[in-house]
Amino acid sequence: MTLIFFLFAFLFSTTISHVSARDFCVADLKGRETSVGYPCKSPNNVTVDDFVFSNFKVGTLNQFNFSFTPAFVDHFPALNGVGLSFGRVEVKKGGAVPMHTHADATEVIISTGGKYTAGFITSDNRVYTKTLTEGNIFVIPKGLLHFGVNVGKGKASGIVVFTSEKPSVQILDIALFGNNLDSGIVGKTTFLDVAQIKKLKALFKGSG
Amino acid sequence: MTLIFFLFAFLFSTTISHVSARDFCVADLKGRETSVGYPCKSPNNVTVDDFVFSNFKVGTLNQFNFSFTPAFVDHFPALNGVGLSFGRVEVKKGGAVPMHTHADATEVIISTGGKYTAGFITSDNRVYTKTLTEGNIFVIPKGLLHFGVNVGKGKASGIVVFTSEKPSVQILDIALFGNNLDSGIVGKTTFLDVAQIKKLKALFKGSG
Amino acid sequence: MTLIFFLFAFLFSTTISHVSARDFCVADLKGRETSVGYPCKSPNNVTVDDFVFSNFKVGTLNQFNFSFTPAFVDHFPALNGVGLSFGRVEVKKGGAVPMHTHADATEVIISTGGKYTAGFITSDNRVYTKTLTEGNIFVIPKGLLHFGVNVGKGKASGIVVFTSEKPSVQILDIALFGNNLDSGIVGKTTFLDVAQIKKLKALFKGSG
Amino acid sequence: MTLIFFLFAFLFSTTISHVSARDFCVADLKGRETSVGYPCKSPNNVTVDDFVFSNFKVGTLNQFNFSFTPAFVDHFPALNGVGLSFGRVEVKKGGAVPMHTHADATEVIISTGGKYTAGFITSDNRVYTKTLTEGNIFVIPKGLLHFGVNVGKGKASGIVVFTSEKPSVQILDIALFGNNLDSGIVGKTTFLDVAQIKKLKALFKGSG
Amino acid sequence: MTLIFFLFAFLFSTTISHVSARDFCVADLKGRETSVGYPCKSPNNVTVDDFVFSNFKVGTLNQFNFSFTPAFVDHFPALNGVGLSFGRVEVKKGGAVPMHTHADATEVIISTGGKYTAGFITSDNRVYTKTLTEGNIFVIPKGLLHFGVNVGKGKASGIVVFTSEKPSVQILDIALFGNNLDSGIVGKTTFLDVAQIKKLKALFKGSG
Amino acid sequence: MTLIFFLFAFLFSTTISHVSARDFCVADLKGRETSVGYPCKSPNNVTVDDFVFSNFKVGTLNQFNFSFTPAFVDHFPALNGVGLSFGRVEVKKGGAVPMHTHADATEVIISTGGKYTAGFITSDNRVYTKTLTEGNIFVIPKGLLHFGVNVGKGKASGIVVFTSEKPSVQILDIALFGNNLDSGIVGKTTFLDVAQIKKLKALFKGSG
Repeated sequence: MTLIFFLFAFLFSTTISHVSARDFCVADLKGRETSVGYPCKSPNNVTVDDFVFSNFKVGTLNQFNFSFTPAFVDHFPALNGVGLSFGRVEVKKGGAVPMHTHADATEVIISTGGKYTAGFITSDNRVYTKTLTEGNIFVIPKGLLHFGVNVGKGKASGIVVFTSEKPSVQILDIALFGNNLDSGIVGKTTFLDVAQIKKLKALFKGSG
Repeated sequence: MTLIFFLFAFLFSTTISHVSARDFCVADLKGRETSVGYPCKSPNNVTVDDFVFSNFKVGTLNQFNFSFTPAFVDHFPALNGVGLSFGRVEVKKGGAVPMHTHADATEVIISTGGKYTAGFITSDNRVYTKTLTEGNIFVIPKGLLHFGVNVGKGKASGIVVFTSEKPSVQILDIALFGNNLDSGIVGKTTFLDVAQIKKLKALFKGSG
Repeated sequence: MTLIFFLFAFLFSTTISHVSARDFCVADLKGRETSVGYPCKSPNNVTVDDFVFSNFKVGTLNQFNFSFTPAFVDHFPALNGVGLSFGRVEVKKGGAVPMHTHADATEVIISTGGKYTAGFITSDNRVYTKTLTEGNIFVIPKGLLHFGVNVGKGKASGIVVFTSEKPSVQILDIALFGNNLDSGIVGKTTFLDVAQIKKLKALFKGSG
Repeated sequence: MTLIFFLFAFLFSTTISHVSARDFCVADLKGRETSVGYPCKSPNNVTVDDFVFSNFKVGTLNQFNFSFTPAFVDHFPALNGVGLSFGRVEVKKGGAVPMHTHADATEVIISTGGKYTAGFITSDNRVYTKTLTEGNIFVIPKGLLHFGVNVGKGKASGIVVFTSEKPSVQILDIALFGNNLDSGIVGKTTFLDVAQIKKLKALFKGSG
Repeated sequence: MTLIFFLFAFLFSTTISHVSARDFCVADLKGRETSVGYPCKSPNNVTVDDFVFSNFKVGTLNQFNFSFTPAFVDHFPALNGVGLSFGRVEVKKGGAVPMHTHADATEVIISTGGKYTAGFITSDNRVYTKTLTEGNIFVIPKGLLHFGVNVGKGKASGIVVFTSEKPSVQILDIALFGNNLDSGIVGKTTFLDVAQIKKLKALFKGSG
Repeated sequence: MTLIFFLFAFLFSTTISHVSARDFCVADLKGRETSVGYPCKSPNNVTVDDFVFSNFKVGTLNQFNFSFTPAFVDHFPALNGVGLSFGRVEVKKGGAVPMHTHADATEVIISTGGKYTAGFITSDNRVYTKTLTEGNIFVIPKGLLHFGVNVGKGKASGIVVFTSEKPSVQILDIALFGNNLDSGIVGKTTFLDVAQIKKLKALFKGSG
């Protein structure tokens, strides 16, 4: 009885710290972003579904013969301020993931099946490459060029983790050939032949 | 005379850096929170009182026989972005502070009187406990279960410092027994007997 | 020809930046730890295998009917300074993961099969719980009490990601009953009955 | 042809990561500041001119015989969240930069000409001073008192870099004598003679 | 019985995470410092006394009529990596704390008695000053000039908290007059009269 | 006289904070690196020359017709823990800086003369390009592909600032063609023709 009394007194005396607690900052995706993410949704509007991403399924294969299903903060508001995001990847037999970088995110590949040769190149120009199978985890340091090839007899699948809730993806061919970057500049700064540049600009729908 | 001239010239030339300075970011408590706190009040609206917390006094005792007066950012806007907050605690003879954690805040206890046995338990399951008297400081590492008992002949008092301007407080009994968490789940995940769970749910006004 | 010349000149002029680059800091596990991890292995001693964790397999079931295979920095040196680690979990039919916290790590559960009810409790004493199936991801905010129960007809499996390369695990029962923490203090700070405490101390091999 | 098809499929499958990328957070200078800077301008409103500061020219000499042209975030929105800002300085023959501090910013001076004696004083009360000429770089640790004197036969020029996008500048004389700080307090806390204080208050337009 | 079995299995399966946990990083004060502090003492050598500072008592009054007892990481190894330190201050009737700065540390004063006028000056040259009494807390933003004067009829006492485990203290007079900084440079960069400089150099034992 | 007495008392009472101050952490380049840099040189061994880089001069032109003089932590120990480094660049008429990235460093170009067209490509595949002249500053966001071309009638010169004390440089051609990365993988992940790859591998001395 006294203890039930205490409870009100106790809760009263600690209410402020409860109000004040910042256990999480679920993104209000309609709010203004800062360099550290979105403003926090009011705790009163947060539900368990903000902490759940339900569609982490294999996506549609593209012509590369791979699929990529992202779970980034814009689709999973609980990631706000956590500095993590996820992707589900499936690469069909013979498929490859083209040379690309993630500015400011380390990538970790957790292989869930198949035989996938992943690699990255460091700034002192060494190549680190490994063929991954189910039960292997591979770390790709932040910002470095990397790639992958399915070298198995079937599909290769994996889960990728990024150390950013909003990882960027800069695909080399799209960056060089899929926009209006002047072909002369591309040539002068990559040493590629003009014919090669024109051919890939045509393929990747670039101009210039 | 020339030097008075200089002054205007000088101030003019450095005005921008003054305008630009970010000496502090006093919380606009009406603004939207981000994972790093509140937006800054306009420096023109900041007064010295934003830097002062005036009521850091001993609070009302609860039935536990302790009082807690918080000074967190929601009541002390100068703490915004500083990553600090404070509490004033007084534990009456025979009182205790129940088992709890602060997610993401280290706590420091500065004893100001009495005999208070404080302790924490680490993740490798060691118990660190010490009886504190006036002039002792005790550090409780971030996120670990901790507790305290007044073992003296009178009251025990202290000032606590948290490395978060919005520390959370998760009191074990309230978390387990003071809400609608299903008793079956509590039993299965704590090994407590059903009778014990029911008894404490009744005491802490929980359901389920 | 001139371009081959250039290459030496060029590499010479940029050698320093190569030498100087810090693309990664693979842990030298024999080195002294600081609050940000291990010293870096000399890049010359780093091999691709430092970036690969090979044994991310389902582990041996314990009497709880679950298994846990960790991939933390102490076994996967490429995680040093990255602030990430991983675990592979399998919970047998009827199994549960007991109430626990991770100080200073957010946990993310990626369900890979079965039906698993995961939940956490916040510092304002709300319960967030969800039954996860393959293709669901669930976020457990840093430092909060959480738990899980296999509610399916078969095993439940998942991959967990922690935002720390060295996450701590504080299992409630082991912390309260598996060490020499005085039973009187446990009672006074948890409101558990002495008989209950003694019973669990016996079960978890605690003393005091 | 199939590859052009692939392209749409591919871009579709990666659209989300593009939308989601946070390559930069250019300041919306009209937005509310937080302790980490301004909200981000919508990427659709960002132009190349946000990444360019065009007027990094020598400014007007003041009566001190030096000029300072700042390039801080309030004038160069691309610096938002980058933690850098810049200044262009020119000190005429015989000129000096008065004793000052930058709270929370390290300063780096890149000499572009002349002979300039720069110095700072550490908290263990050592004086570090060096005469800089073209091609010298000098680091002034964060928050320490520092100063400079043109000791050459002509002007001295340099570029300064601050590790804050909004560095503060606290000029000792203006802080002590250019405001309404009570002369009695100035005397008691600086040991300066009253006559000296009054003289400098008059010069720096202070009151009190 | 089966549960005792489980316990070994369970602990075995989680041993690695225990080994791996980084609950704290108590300083090994004999180790090499980095920019984030000292290396961690081996957990096996850590005792509860590492978490306790026992001598937080009022120190000896100096001729200023104040005493300062620091509790910094070099004397309290549990503060390593925590970014906090403490001081106990007592200012006798008529005493003052001279004008000084703490590079890269915010200071918080918790008044424990007396009447103490504390103040700081911002980089836009405003003075913020307040007379503190028991139960007041005052925040002094990082890196700014500040000072204090005992304005009461008796001693003034307080506890200070710094947001650095190794706060620096740069006392204006000692920095300007207590070393070998050339008097000509002092004059040219502070506008103080030569006689005043000589007088204070004599007082503060400076040369040059 | 009393004040000289005070001085010793005062210095004594504050000695600990002086000893304890961490104003800077100059690199001990012979020490073990961590993810945050080198251990600190003992303050007693630090001299003013640790804070000075003396050879920030124009370097030797390479066959590209540009020179690059780096000032990184390995040559300038005061940069340790500061997160900054510098380079001096001169590009001869007709020269270019090839396509490259800096993982985890934002680059800022301060033009000191000539006409230099700088550009970067974002992860949403936009090209941002600007022709810089003396008095222009240009920001290149972290981790993105960028390039430059001297488009003037004479040399173009500049100072570059990196937000890392050890910036990496990944030059696209050297990464793709200057090592032993298998040509088949290069083709499959870049869509370049085999003939083009072979030609550039020959030029950049690569194998495979």
